[in-house]
Amino acid sequence: MFYTDGKLQYPVRVETPNPIFARALQQAIGGVEGEIRVMMQYLFQGWGSRGPKKYRDMLINTGTEEIGHIEMLATAVALNLEGAPLSLQEDVARDGVAGAVLGGMNLRHILSTGLGATPENANGVPFNASHVYASGNLAADMLANATAEATGRALAVRLYGMTDDPGMKDMLSFLIARDTMHQQQWLAVIEELGGMEKVLPIPNSFPQEMEANRFSYAYFGHRTDKQIPMGRWTEGPSLDGNGTFQPMISEPLGGEPVLAPPRPDGGAQQEQTMAGPAANDPTGTTPNVA
Amino acid sequence: MFYTDGKLQYPVRVETPNPIFARALQQAIGGVEGEIRVMMQYLFQGWGSRGPKKYRDMLINTGTEEIGHIEMLATAVALNLEGAPLSLQEDVARDGVAGAVLGGMNLRHILSTGLGATPENANGVPFNASHVYASGNLAADMLANATAEATGRALAVRLYGMTDDPGMKDMLSFLIARDTMHQQQWLAVIEELGGMEKVLPIPNSFPQEMEANRFSYAYFGHRTDKQIPMGRWTEGPSLDGNGTFQPMISEPLGGEPVLAPPRPDGGAQQEQTMAGPAANDPTGTTPNVA
Amino acid sequence: MFYTDGKLQYPVRVETPNPIFARALQQAIGGVEGEIRVMMQYLFQGWGSRGPKKYRDMLINTGTEEIGHIEMLATAVALNLEGAPLSLQEDVARDGVAGAVLGGMNLRHILSTGLGATPENANGVPFNASHVYASGNLAADMLANATAEATGRALAVRLYGMTDDPGMKDMLSFLIARDTMHQQQWLAVIEELGGMEKVLPIPNSFPQEMEANRFSYAYFGHRTDKQIPMGRWTEGPSLDGNGTFQPMISEPLGGEPVLAPPRPDGGAQQEQTMAGPAANDPTGTTPNVA
Amino acid sequence: MFYTDGKLQYPVRVETPNPIFARALQQAIGGVEGEIRVMMQYLFQGWGSRGPKKYRDMLINTGTEEIGHIEMLATAVALNLEGAPLSLQEDVARDGVAGAVLGGMNLRHILSTGLGATPENANGVPFNASHVYASGNLAADMLANATAEATGRALAVRLYGMTDDPGMKDMLSFLIARDTMHQQQWLAVIEELGGMEKVLPIPNSFPQEMEANRFSYAYFGHRTDKQIPMGRWTEGPSLDGNGTFQPMISEPLGGEPVLAPPRPDGGAQQEQTMAGPAANDPTGTTPNVA
Amino acid sequence: MFYTDGKLQYPVRVETPNPIFARALQQAIGGVEGEIRVMMQYLFQGWGSRGPKKYRDMLINTGTEEIGHIEMLATAVALNLEGAPLSLQEDVARDGVAGAVLGGMNLRHILSTGLGATPENANGVPFNASHVYASGNLAADMLANATAEATGRALAVRLYGMTDDPGMKDMLSFLIARDTMHQQQWLAVIEELGGMEKVLPIPNSFPQEMEANRFSYAYFGHRTDKQIPMGRWTEGPSLDGNGTFQPMISEPLGGEPVLAPPRPDGGAQQEQTMAGPAANDPTGTTPNVA
Amino acid sequence: MFYTDGKLQYPVRVETPNPIFARALQQAIGGVEGEIRVMMQYLFQGWGSRGPKKYRDMLINTGTEEIGHIEMLATAVALNLEGAPLSLQEDVARDGVAGAVLGGMNLRHILSTGLGATPENANGVPFNASHVYASGNLAADMLANATAEATGRALAVRLYGMTDDPGMKDMLSFLIARDTMHQQQWLAVIEELGGMEKVLPIPNSFPQEMEANRFSYAYFGHRTDKQIPMGRWTEGPSLDGNGTFQPMISEPLGGEPVLAPPRPDGGAQQEQTMAGPAANDPTGTTPNVA
Repeated sequence: MFYTDGKLQYPVRVETPNPIFARALQQAIGGVEGEIRVMMQYLFQGWGSRGPKKYRDMLINTGTEEIGHIEMLATAVALNLEGAPLSLQEDVARDGVAGAVLGGMNLRHILSTGLGATPENANGVPFNASHVYASGNLAADMLANATAEATGRALAVRLYGMTDDPGMKDMLSFLIARDTMHQQQWLAVIEELGGMEKVLPIPNSFPQEMEANRFSYAYFGHRTDKQIPMGRWTEGPSLDGNGTFQPMISEPLGGEPVLAPPRPDGGAQQEQTMAGPAANDPTGTTPNVA
Repeated sequence: MFYTDGKLQYPVRVETPNPIFARALQQAIGGVEGEIRVMMQYLFQGWGSRGPKKYRDMLINTGTEEIGHIEMLATAVALNLEGAPLSLQEDVARDGVAGAVLGGMNLRHILSTGLGATPENANGVPFNASHVYASGNLAADMLANATAEATGRALAVRLYGMTDDPGMKDMLSFLIARDTMHQQQWLAVIEELGGMEKVLPIPNSFPQEMEANRFSYAYFGHRTDKQIPMGRWTEGPSLDGNGTFQPMISEPLGGEPVLAPPRPDGGAQQEQTMAGPAANDPTGTTPNVA
Repeated sequence: MFYTDGKLQYPVRVETPNPIFARALQQAIGGVEGEIRVMMQYLFQGWGSRGPKKYRDMLINTGTEEIGHIEMLATAVALNLEGAPLSLQEDVARDGVAGAVLGGMNLRHILSTGLGATPENANGVPFNASHVYASGNLAADMLANATAEATGRALAVRLYGMTDDPGMKDMLSFLIARDTMHQQQWLAVIEELGGMEKVLPIPNSFPQEMEANRFSYAYFGHRTDKQIPMGRWTEGPSLDGNGTFQPMISEPLGGEPVLAPPRPDGGAQQEQTMAGPAANDPTGTTPNVA
Repeated sequence: MFYTDGKLQYPVRVETPNPIFARALQQAIGGVEGEIRVMMQYLFQGWGSRGPKKYRDMLINTGTEEIGHIEMLATAVALNLEGAPLSLQEDVARDGVAGAVLGGMNLRHILSTGLGATPENANGVPFNASHVYASGNLAADMLANATAEATGRALAVRLYGMTDDPGMKDMLSFLIARDTMHQQQWLAVIEELGGMEKVLPIPNSFPQEMEANRFSYAYFGHRTDKQIPMGRWTEGPSLDGNGTFQPMISEPLGGEPVLAPPRPDGGAQQEQTMAGPAANDPTGTTPNVA
Repeated sequence: MFYTDGKLQYPVRVETPNPIFARALQQAIGGVEGEIRVMMQYLFQGWGSRGPKKYRDMLINTGTEEIGHIEMLATAVALNLEGAPLSLQEDVARDGVAGAVLGGMNLRHILSTGLGATPENANGVPFNASHVYASGNLAADMLANATAEATGRALAVRLYGMTDDPGMKDMLSFLIARDTMHQQQWLAVIEELGGMEKVLPIPNSFPQEMEANRFSYAYFGHRTDKQIPMGRWTEGPSLDGNGTFQPMISEPLGGEPVLAPPRPDGGAQQEQTMAGPAANDPTGTTPNVA
Repeated sequence: MFYTDGKLQYPVRVETPNPIFARALQQAIGGVEGEIRVMMQYLFQGWGSRGPKKYRDMLINTGTEEIGHIEMLATAVALNLEGAPLSLQEDVARDGVAGAVLGGMNLRHILSTGLGATPENANGVPFNASHVYASGNLAADMLANATAEATGRALAVRLYGMTDDPGMKDMLSFLIARDTMHQQQWLAVIEELGGMEKVLPIPNSFPQEMEANRFSYAYFGHRTDKQIPMGRWTEGPSLDGNGTFQPMISEPLGGEPVLAPPRPDGGAQQEQTMAGPAANDPTGTTPNVA
């Protein structure tokens, strides 16, 4: 169950409202790198958590923090929209060029919300909850969370660079700090579980002798010139300690796939199902072309 | 530029076609944990790669491998659909219960494709390319890729457990092995970049003194009982070596947000914009309720 | 800012887990009638609220309650999935008919979450945040909220009828009661604002003399037989007291639209842009056909 | 069955084409507040209508009117696009600033349609038919329709304010009038059904004694300061006459949820399923932090 | 402007309701091969039509017919849902196997619509209006329409095969006939425009001497074995009479792409922007692997 | 299985980077007329191909070419983004008008990718794989492919007209040429199958005597004035040689649909299910209105 105190986790102040920056901030609300996503991701991971209870508690607790981050950003969007032109005439009056501001806005900020935030990204695409990763595998989820915070911090850093409003920079400096912590937090769980050596390969509950382990530590080359990009991934012990990296040219181990012809009553063309001109060359692909 | 040889990377064999397993396999094609996603993710990361060229090459090379994984799975779906009932009558004939098979199928396998795979997940939801993460930040992308392979391997392991068809188990044992390698591969890049200590916080190009660093290593508690879930994330040095984890009760540092009233010509209700019954209590929330 | 206590708002108990009912419950989580929608809708309305502060507080307060409803339902889904078949073999063992259970499940409950809830509806379609209505107009939002609770209660009632598990019926009886209240709550705001007579037409801040008010209270007939479905909407005073309902046969007041021909460099076919066979009959539609 | 006469319901005239206003108008076509939505919503409600036939007729009749509204708006978009710059050079020539117009356009108006309307909103997001509410419950549907018209009129009013083109203002004054009527129309059905007192709670066919009626008229407080936003929703008789509003502090009635641990073959990490370092602290959340 | 007469274009009769067939029929309503799509596609093409007026009239006229097809199918879905089980208990009573029917249904048919159709496909995925093709190019649109009717007729044929209900077969025989005509209709426009020879390449208003015409009639081979699938597309005159088909092995005409390194303030990792371990091998891909 | 050589199929050169043109180019990557769509469409058609093998080979071969087209366009986007303003200040410095460039950009090019391409269209809407048509019917697929290339070439021509960058014009002249060929290629298959006369109606495997063939070649008129747009589609032999086109006024052949009333336990309103005021007028629609 959840509670609120109606206050902001950190002050949100806008000195010079900018409706195009309001649009940019939307990415941090409804973008795939944004706060709706992490809020729902941590809560759903917590609510579905099976295994040690402390992870459930930790996840729900941090998911609860994230609700407040959306609140901060929604406030920041609303404040940046104050003073926005509501008409093409106001727009011209403002910059002397029709469309310079209005054209760059999320028009739904005027037309749909009356100068408030939407659960959309910077291009006005609504958040889609397929981005909520909750796999039931703790280690996979921790990587997903670290990813979300890594892209989230990259986004916050870019927003920080985009504005010179001191209030906005201050708010973003807080969100950047929280993203720093949250990256750490999820990777700390992996460390607690024994580190990469213990958690890999994810899921580590599947017996590796059942996988085609001849290919488990091979970096496959798919270049026609047979060159292979070399690096840590082509040499040395694997990170789980169970094998040795090696480069390997990929060869087709399976032949050409053969599917049965369509059933006559299956909605295909007759020519696909019977002998006829189109079937004249059953072997398909043919002569060499120099 | 790309090439093909018309062959499968690994043999795809189905002994007993099962149209419900065909639907399950779709998750590995068009699901968020699936192969369309990683194919496009690695290719887009490669195509947009800025910085050392070897990572571009490595990414495009592995993206190229993934195209062939979709090919294998699409073949597996088509083979599992051979013999599927095309009508409610055939369905009854098969199991004695109308709907037992047809009802559990992705009906588009019959109605839209004539017994072939679709770029959809196991529930028939089409792949949405917002899942292609290519952040322009190498470390963030490596975490995203490791996540994709961790959830991908969890998915493959679950598909492996779902079937007892030897051909399908064989194919999946190969895909599981490749997922093992690909998890390693992306994390090996992080090791090559100096390990977590060097790459964190992501992006590491933003000067940490500009973040509100008082909060950069604090695990915030948001529980009403002031209890905090303890673990590696509440004590010890941070993983980047720049701080020390600590628990901290989260307090609201910002006050209650105040937005300007709506403009009279902005499409709100009059009562929102003028004095009136609704505005009688400007202070809002009020008496205690025991 | 938000807080949690880790407990459920109301007990969630499942006596006989049923994975198909788990799929049905998803509609109440991620469906358009579900709890993610109202949670986000009330919070976004509150965060963007302009005008009397009490509505902001009321909205955010109830939005906070809704987070806990998702929590209850996610728990109910997870509990209904315990004991679900993970393989086609287990499925046969269970009911004697392959696919009877598995085929009716949201397969992502097995493949993607390890038996946990997803932010999806009963067909596995992820929640899309375009359903979050926050118009900046208080009365419009109250109607939107009452709608959400009306469809939400209809959904809860149907779920109640679908199951005979006493635990589930108990939980649903609570959610139904809350939906009863929430329908009331939003309509009570309209009463507080003066009732329909005062709030209509929404927005009431637009001067009605600027609308084409000859048509403001006319029910238009579009039937070829010139019959008009009669009811309260065709007679008596309008609900805002500003007019009188009347039936009116709709007549085309505008002529046929005429668009300029395409620019020659605009990517149309030549025949669209120049005189030629296709342009022979500039008048278009022609002879009567008996 | 449906018919057309090729004419517009009301004249559509554009004196000064404006491609950015064309983009804004798209919200009224393909936005959630727009005409495609109401057209489909009323038709689907009518086509699925069970119960008194007059509501079916009324719904389909008005749905038929709405098709013509899309036609008007699509015409308005096409006319506003005439004279739009097709190239970056033309754009500079027009305003002296590259991107001032082109950048603010829906680029698909040039690239995909050759200066015609799309079934998208003002941000270019295509209409998604999940917004078509047809619940099978007449009262719920009437609220949904009134909501659509309330947000639709707010949108039309905002578009009216955004332009100073006399032709566009004239067209919008007609659409605003129709939205006035349609708000009335749907609420008039509720009045015909006996008013809110009779239709609430929706659905009114569920026996209220089966809901947890202790909570049916309570406004729950979720604020940590135990303050409750007071209003009509916290005192006085409920709108259905079946109870009395009251404020109530929400208390967790359920305990902490407990889910079974993951099955060993379910794709979780080993540490989640067995005793081990991660399971050391089975009680989870722990010491107080001052 | 549009009109209705409240009657069906063709009788819709269901002898034995089948809720799983109701789900299948949804593909013909809200699937990409379905009637919502063609209705909107023809209407939007008509509304945006530039050039000879007769095509506008023809398009809108046929779009108007399609509205009635949705009406027929929505009625068919509703009739097939009568008698559907509303609860898991009824479901068992019906077939003796829990989930056999309910599990195969679109659960929204019960939970969201009260046994009515939805604007969704057979998997419950809502129609997305991005499928409405209206390119502003008449010939391209005719191909798009012929495609829609070809896949639409394939779908109707498959539905015809799926059922043995005489009423449903009768209705489908009508829809199949209309699809036959509509395929013809759109291709007849191409014939009227002079046939493929005249309309190709689409758009035919772009001067072909400005394209890289060395490659305009070459079928490129991308197989590693240099074999090329031969057919009409590799020999003989091109269909527009402007060239001769020929096979050609595709060679990379461009080198390796080189992008600038990331800006230091752009959110990338430091290692991407500066000399360091990761930059040691600037040439990237390297040694041959045998 | 697939291979790459790391090179571009054709040179990609940008003389004057333009971030708004980068946004426009996105339509050719992730738009419905773009390259991701054809790549996936041809590959999925090939992978699911049943019938003569040569079509499989041809499809997969051309699908492989298309991967390289995405690569070219992704490179073009990245090059056009070099020099883009990262902040509102840089934006003002560039054009003197804040928002002129930034406002017209896909902001995710800055915020989400660090100046790289996304799998989105020109409005930032991500590609949705429902656009991948693979019907299992060869002729339908060929029309779908010809459509994709027709709209694709129209798009490329419009992009060509939008820019005056010589490098971009050169690249587009190549893509336009390839679209020319691909239009030809898919229609050449139809010619190889015997031309339209043989392949129509699609699918040609359904016995036409089973369709309601009285309506198979009739162009239906749905205009209230009984006028019918005349053309090749209303006279002369049908294109399949099986009938003669004729105009026909559409008459309703079915009566008014009658659905059963809602079940009392189905979540409808009581008034829908029982006698009452709303049911007073069972006949529905009534008196004429002059």
